[in-house]
Amino acid sequence: MSNKIYFTPGPSQLFYTFEEHLKKAIFNDIPSISHRSSAFIKVMQETTEALVELLELPEGYDIYFLNSANEAWDRIIQNLIQSSSHHFINGAFSKKFYDFATQHAKESTLSEVADGGTFSSWEVPEKAELIGVTKNETSVGHTFLEEELENLRHIYPDKLIALDIVSAAPSLPINFKNVDTAYFSVQKAFGMPSGLGVWIANKRCHEVAIKRAENSSLGSYRALPNLKRFGSKHQTPETPNMLFIYLLGQIAKDILQMGVKKMRNDTTYKAAILNQMVSNHSQLDHFVTSKEHRSKTTVVAKTEKSGEILRFFQKKGLILGDGYGVNKENHIRIANFPTHSKESIEMICDLMDKVE
Amino acid sequence: MSNKIYFTPGPSQLFYTFEEHLKKAIFNDIPSISHRSSAFIKVMQETTEALVELLELPEGYDIYFLNSANEAWDRIIQNLIQSSSHHFINGAFSKKFYDFATQHAKESTLSEVADGGTFSSWEVPEKAELIGVTKNETSVGHTFLEEELENLRHIYPDKLIALDIVSAAPSLPINFKNVDTAYFSVQKAFGMPSGLGVWIANKRCHEVAIKRAENSSLGSYRALPNLKRFGSKHQTPETPNMLFIYLLGQIAKDILQMGVKKMRNDTTYKAAILNQMVSNHSQLDHFVTSKEHRSKTTVVAKTEKSGEILRFFQKKGLILGDGYGVNKENHIRIANFPTHSKESIEMICDLMDKVE
Repeated sequence: MSNKIYFTPGPSQLFYTFEEHLKKAIFNDIPSISHRSSAFIKVMQETTEALVELLELPEGYDIYFLNSANEAWDRIIQNLIQSSSHHFINGAFSKKFYDFATQHAKESTLSEVADGGTFSSWEVPEKAELIGVTKNETSVGHTFLEEELENLRHIYPDKLIALDIVSAAPSLPINFKNVDTAYFSVQKAFGMPSGLGVWIANKRCHEVAIKRAENSSLGSYRALPNLKRFGSKHQTPETPNMLFIYLLGQIAKDILQMGVKKMRNDTTYKAAILNQMVSNHSQLDHFVTSKEHRSKTTVVAKTEKSGEILRFFQKKGLILGDGYGVNKENHIRIANFPTHSKESIEMICDLMDKVE
Repeated sequence: MSNKIYFTPGPSQLFYTFEEHLKKAIFNDIPSISHRSSAFIKVMQETTEALVELLELPEGYDIYFLNSANEAWDRIIQNLIQSSSHHFINGAFSKKFYDFATQHAKESTLSEVADGGTFSSWEVPEKAELIGVTKNETSVGHTFLEEELENLRHIYPDKLIALDIVSAAPSLPINFKNVDTAYFSVQKAFGMPSGLGVWIANKRCHEVAIKRAENSSLGSYRALPNLKRFGSKHQTPETPNMLFIYLLGQIAKDILQMGVKKMRNDTTYKAAILNQMVSNHSQLDHFVTSKEHRSKTTVVAKTEKSGEILRFFQKKGLILGDGYGVNKENHIRIANFPTHSKESIEMICDLMDKVE
C-alpha cells in the first residue's frame, strides 16, 4: 500500500492484515488450485464458519458467495419475489433496490422520505411479499435502528424482510432473527478489494424459492436451491472468486481474534469523536438530523467547503469521501471501519479544526 | 507462488508477471481508489484497449466486465434470447449453456454428438434466434474450427452467433466477423485468479437487446443497454472487480509486448510436441479422434493410468489436470497456456516417457 490512508466509504482502506494474507495466498497457490479440491472446500468452510461466528448468525441461516451487493438485489428479486416488494427509501442505495425490482417487471412499492430523513409511517401494502430495508444508507449516513426492524417484523410477521448490510457488517450489531435475508459487499467495512458479495438467506427464503420454482424461473446457476445444493458441500455452482473468499475468511478470523466486542466498542468511540467534531465545527453540520439515526460507520456532514476540506486532507495523504450523487459537492463522508485506528480518526478530528 | 507448476486447464498457473503487477497494484492503491475516479477510468480504458488489440476485435465490438463465463451465459440469455436458442454440444460446457437457457424457460434446442465428437450436421431450427458454439470445449479438448464457424455464419446470416472462448482466448486466432457475442473467464489462458469474466457484444446484439427491451425485462444493472451506457464512459454500472480488471490489462499488455504472433507460434509448437507425445505413448491415446479438431490449449488423453500419472508428476511439483466429470479417472488434461514455457512443456513430454 502507498502511504495514503483512505477514509472513503468504499472502496476504502484495505484491512491492515490484507497484504500479509495476500502474500500467503499467492505462496500457497490459492488462485491455482481446483475449486473442487478438498483444499478449497476447506477454505470455503473456514470462511463460512468465521462469518457465521462474526455476524452471530442464528441456526438455519446460510451464507452464499456472489460478486457484489448489486447482484444480491438481482438474486433476491429472481428467487424471492413473485409480483411485488416494498422498499423503505431515504437515499440512493435503498432506492436502487426498488429500481432493480421494477426493471425486473415487479410491481413494487415504496415509502420514500427525503434523503437522510427518518421514517414515521410503517405501512406496507398487503401485496408486498418482501420488505427491503437498508441498515446503513451509505449515500447519506443514515442508520435504520434495530427497534425499527423489530417493529417491522412484529407488524408483518408473514412477509420476508431483506436487510442491506453493506457498510454495516461486521461493525454494527444486527439481530438476524428480525431478518430473512441480508447481503453485503466486501470493499466497505471488511477492508477488501471490490468483487465479492455475501448473501445470507434463511430457511423461509428457501421455502419461498422452492415454491416459486414450481411455476417460475429462478434464473440458473445462482438459483437459491442450486446455491444451497452446492453450498451444503461447501462448494459453489461456478468457479468463484477463490482468492477473495480465502482473504475474506482470514480477515474475519483476524477480527474475531481481536474481539468483536472490542471492534464494536472502538467503532462507537470513533463515531462519537467524529460526530462531536462535526457538532463543534463552524463549517460542518450533521446531514441526518435525528441523532440516534446517524451512522456510526459512515459519518456524513453538510458543508459549503467540501472541495477545500478534501484537498486539505489529501495533501496530507488522508483521503476523505465526497458526497454521493446530488450531494457530491455539499457533503463530506468519513468512513469508520475496523481497519481505521482510533489514532487515525483522532488525527482527522484534530486536523479538521485547522480548516475552519 | 510455490515451486509447483500448474498445467491444470483452469484455475491454472498464474501468468509469470502476475505477482509483479499485483504488488504494483497494491502499492498504487488500485483496490482503494474510487471506481468513479479518473484514475480508474484510465485503468478501464487501458484494459479495454489492450484486449481489443490482443483479440483483434473489429470495429463495433464492445467489451464488458462480468464475473465469470457462467454469468455471460445468463446475460446472453436475458438480453439476446426471446424464446429459443440452438446449441452445438459435444462436452460439459457447451451442454451447460443449453441447460442455463432451459432453466430460464427458453424453448431451446440442441445438436448433440458424443463428448469430443465432431459435428456433421449443421441444421438449426428456424425458431432459434441465437446459435451457441464452443470454440474450445475444455472438458474434452475439442476445438471448433474457424471454417465451421464461417460455414454456420454463411448458412444462418440472420441468427446471432455466440462463441464460448473460455480457454481459447487469447491463444487461438478467432475471426470475430463470424461471431456476434463471445465470452471468457480469466483463470484459463490469461493466467489470473478466477472471479472476472469478459463479455464481447457487437452492434447487432445491442439492436436485439433494445428491441427486446420494448416488451421484456433484460434484467437490471447488467442489462446490455445499461452496460453500454456506462461502458461508453469507461465505467461499469456497479463497483466492479477493479483489481482484476487492472491485472488483466497488464497481462494483456505483456502478451502484446511479447508479440501475439510469437505467443501463438509457441502455442502451436507446444501443442505439437504434446500431441506427438500422446501419439507415441503406450499408455495414452487421443480422446478427440479427428486430428484437426484436437485442442491446442487443452490436450486431452485417454488412459487407464490417470491416477498413477498424476501422482508421478505431482511428486515433481508438476500438477496436471484429471478428466472432467464422468471422465475424471479415464483422462488426463494438460493445459498449454501462454504462461507455460516451451521448456516446461518439453519437460512434461520427456517425463511422460518415464511412466510407461
